[in-house]
Amino acid sequence: MSLRVIYRILGILLMLFSLTLVPPMLISLAFEDHTLSAFAIALGITLLTGFALFYPNRHARKELRNRDGFLITVLFWTVLGAFGSLPFLLAEDPNLSIIDAMFESFSGLTTTGATVMTGLDLLPHSILYYRQQLQWLGGMGIVVLAVAILPTLGIGGMQLYRTEIPGPLKDSKLTPRITETAKALWYIYAALTLVCFASYWAAGMSWFDALGHSFSTVAVGGFSTHDASIGYFDSATIEMICVFFMVVSSISFGLHFAAWREGRISHYLRDPETRFFLILLLILTCVTIAGLLLTGSYDDSKALRHGLFEAVSVATTTGFGVADFTGWPGVLPMMLFIAAFIGACSGSAGGGMKVIRILLILKQGVREVHRLIHPNAILSVKVGKMRISEGVAEAVWGFFSVYLLLFVLMMLGMLATGLDQVTAWSAVGSALNNLGPGLGEVATHYGDIPGAAKGILILAMLLGRLEIFTVLVLFTPAFWRR
Amino acid sequence: MSLRVIYRILGILLMLFSLTLVPPMLISLAFEDHTLSAFAIALGITLLTGFALFYPNRHARKELRNRDGFLITVLFWTVLGAFGSLPFLLAEDPNLSIIDAMFESFSGLTTTGATVMTGLDLLPHSILYYRQQLQWLGGMGIVVLAVAILPTLGIGGMQLYRTEIPGPLKDSKLTPRITETAKALWYIYAALTLVCFASYWAAGMSWFDALGHSFSTVAVGGFSTHDASIGYFDSATIEMICVFFMVVSSISFGLHFAAWREGRISHYLRDPETRFFLILLLILTCVTIAGLLLTGSYDDSKALRHGLFEAVSVATTTGFGVADFTGWPGVLPMMLFIAAFIGACSGSAGGGMKVIRILLILKQGVREVHRLIHPNAILSVKVGKMRISEGVAEAVWGFFSVYLLLFVLMMLGMLATGLDQVTAWSAVGSALNNLGPGLGEVATHYGDIPGAAKGILILAMLLGRLEIFTVLVLFTPAFWRR
Ligand SMILES: [K+]
Ligand SMILES: [K+]
Repeated sequence: MSLRVIYRILGILLMLFSLTLVPPMLISLAFEDHTLSAFAIALGITLLTGFALFYPNRHARKELRNRDGFLITVLFWTVLGAFGSLPFLLAEDPNLSIIDAMFESFSGLTTTGATVMTGLDLLPHSILYYRQQLQWLGGMGIVVLAVAILPTLGIGGMQLYRTEIPGPLKDSKLTPRITETAKALWYIYAALTLVCFASYWAAGMSWFDALGHSFSTVAVGGFSTHDASIGYFDSATIEMICVFFMVVSSISFGLHFAAWREGRISHYLRDPETRFFLILLLILTCVTIAGLLLTGSYDDSKALRHGLFEAVSVATTTGFGVADFTGWPGVLPMMLFIAAFIGACSGSAGGGMKVIRILLILKQGVREVHRLIHPNAILSVKVGKMRISEGVAEAVWGFFSVYLLLFVLMMLGMLATGLDQVTAWSAVGSALNNLGPGLGEVATHYGDIPGAAKGILILAMLLGRLEIFTVLVLFTPAFWRR
Repeated sequence: MSLRVIYRILGILLMLFSLTLVPPMLISLAFEDHTLSAFAIALGITLLTGFALFYPNRHARKELRNRDGFLITVLFWTVLGAFGSLPFLLAEDPNLSIIDAMFESFSGLTTTGATVMTGLDLLPHSILYYRQQLQWLGGMGIVVLAVAILPTLGIGGMQLYRTEIPGPLKDSKLTPRITETAKALWYIYAALTLVCFASYWAAGMSWFDALGHSFSTVAVGGFSTHDASIGYFDSATIEMICVFFMVVSSISFGLHFAAWREGRISHYLRDPETRFFLILLLILTCVTIAGLLLTGSYDDSKALRHGLFEAVSVATTTGFGVADFTGWPGVLPMMLFIAAFIGACSGSAGGGMKVIRILLILKQGVREVHRLIHPNAILSVKVGKMRISEGVAEAVWGFFSVYLLLFVLMMLGMLATGLDQVTAWSAVGSALNNLGPGLGEVATHYGDIPGAAKGILILAMLLGRLEIFTVLVLFTPAFWRR
């Protein structure tokens, strides 16, 4: 490994990150919420640490190998998660322990949106803003990671088929150089945020709430500035805007880029993953609404509004709330929760296993059945017009199995901390899928579970966010061999 | 399809099955338990139906195609399950509804061992004997199915690698003709039952209990003649005998055959699946005992006895009990329950996904990680000395995914009947893995859940028992095309 180069890069990253503490300081000044010093100290610590890492290694230049990408990616997220917790730790309100501050920071950066805090409405504005901004930055990082970086490492849903087909992404000639790709994606991400902000504002949110919620919507994050989440506004208009942007943000930013460049939306409908995703959302929404109507849980208009919103919010792994879906009757909570395992499209900031993987697994399952009937036929799996290679198929199965294996192991770990089964499985599922809300004891917040359980969940969020294998690779002896 | 040939075969099957009602009639006479007529009527109905199916088609001769094997296999199990319920339905004690009688019959035949009955100790002896015999017959059928029939259809753990390696099975020249293979397997199965019976009897069981429990032990079934199961005898000797035979019965009968023919036990240790299975059992047992000791759940000797017995009973998917493991602290119940998803070795009467599949998935998972580090290397997965082909790898992934998908769907179905999450997931898991006991409301018996839920569980037992794809194939249009 080129340790000095990696130190240099991390140093730059931390110095840049320290700058992101300036906006919350301005918010603190504007609202006079007496949290300025917490951010100032955090900025100082982060900037100095960054400089201390950067300066001695400022001349370190060495070609980074592909393999270094794994280490740098994991370090980026863990180091930012750790330093991101400083404001939570230093602020007097909220008064968080180290593990709680870490949990909140990692939950923000990974766009999970699980929180250990209650009484959000009474917190300093700067802290509230900072949480939303963490999600926004995390989402930005994830989009670039998913579209531009992980594929070069051989990981992730995007790479699985898009590098091999003459599909939307290749057509649009997304520049192969990571920095230029990143810039293009950020423009789209920022533009989407801006439109979302304006829509929320026009629909009646304060500028502060509109900004904060546009941040966490586009990031598929789910943090809110109110305990009641989107339900606080009790506005059908705001809910519809939110649903629209949750769906848009859960679609590949590679597609957005292609559609924007060519001014056409047919790209979306030609993309098999997007089509499958939209169909799934439609079915889930219909079943949810039907379930609510049949059980008479709400009056008709509420059933429509709540059913649509919660189905989209959970299935896209955003995690905003307008109603407590965990208390809904029968199969509904579990069904939505399992939809979050499928998750969003690859190349978005959404979580879960990603729609394309599930689509491929279903197609391959059907193929296996057909193979039994026609043992000697050569049956290939196609997505769109493209034949899936053995390597891609195995990568998908491998991801699926390891995902579930880690899910089970971490769930057992949670049970060992004394939690009940429903809390344990739903908390790990929620963290691994970067969803946010859980069931049981963690239906509203994660403040009351043991510290060890929070540690497991932080690991789960990271694993989910980094497509698991990016992290796992670091634990193999082969990786560290020269 | 050659419908007339299939009718003829089913007719013969039913007539043969009707003969198996003679032993319970003898038991009824011996114990004067007033249940003779129920068995006599059931025998009559079964024999006549069989004759009615057989006689008009007695001259139907047509070469059966491989594809007919799927239909015949599924029909065998469903028809026997249905007719096997007659004695439960006709007997005055127990007074069971149709769905309950069906549940008990399918649970017996599939060697699941879940029961809807309580107060076993007070039931007529003939009914008790009949339940045990159902498991024994089911286990016999499964061993033949798994070793001799499913592989020719391209399904199942046995086929996955043994048909391709010069391993134990090929060495031993198990005759390719199904009938001869079946005969050899039945001899071993019967011999194992006999030794098990003699051991139980020598250890102090009555001949009736020894016979009944030897039946359900060798079948990896778990039905007992007492509500307290093996715990009724409160004998460390009996428990050790039971543990020994549960383990032996969970190992491939192909291996038993090879070991017996050549008089060597080295076959077992050379077999990668058996080795992995025994290591898993050892680890599980140690963790369980450690957990019980650390939490002070029992005094030391009880912790050893109960820990060993329950770990082996659940992990082999037998489902006998000496203690209520579902009430054990922390992670233990869930851990054991998840071990049942791994299950027994292929080619045994045990359930679960089968050890070989999990072994292959783990190896392939490791391979995927290595592929990321060495993107251009050609990395093959080996079991023992044999390289796993793409086709086998895909069959394993496919099985795993479809298994879990069906698990989730059936669990959602259970939730829709109004059951709680723990009951729903554990009941489906238990049925699909052919384990027996569940958690929550079904920790002791399945009598109190809704009829629709029992129907789902019957389906789950069948799917699990027939390695899923045997059943799924029948639901594809391609199968029914000429
Ligand atoms: K989220
Ligand atoms: K069983």
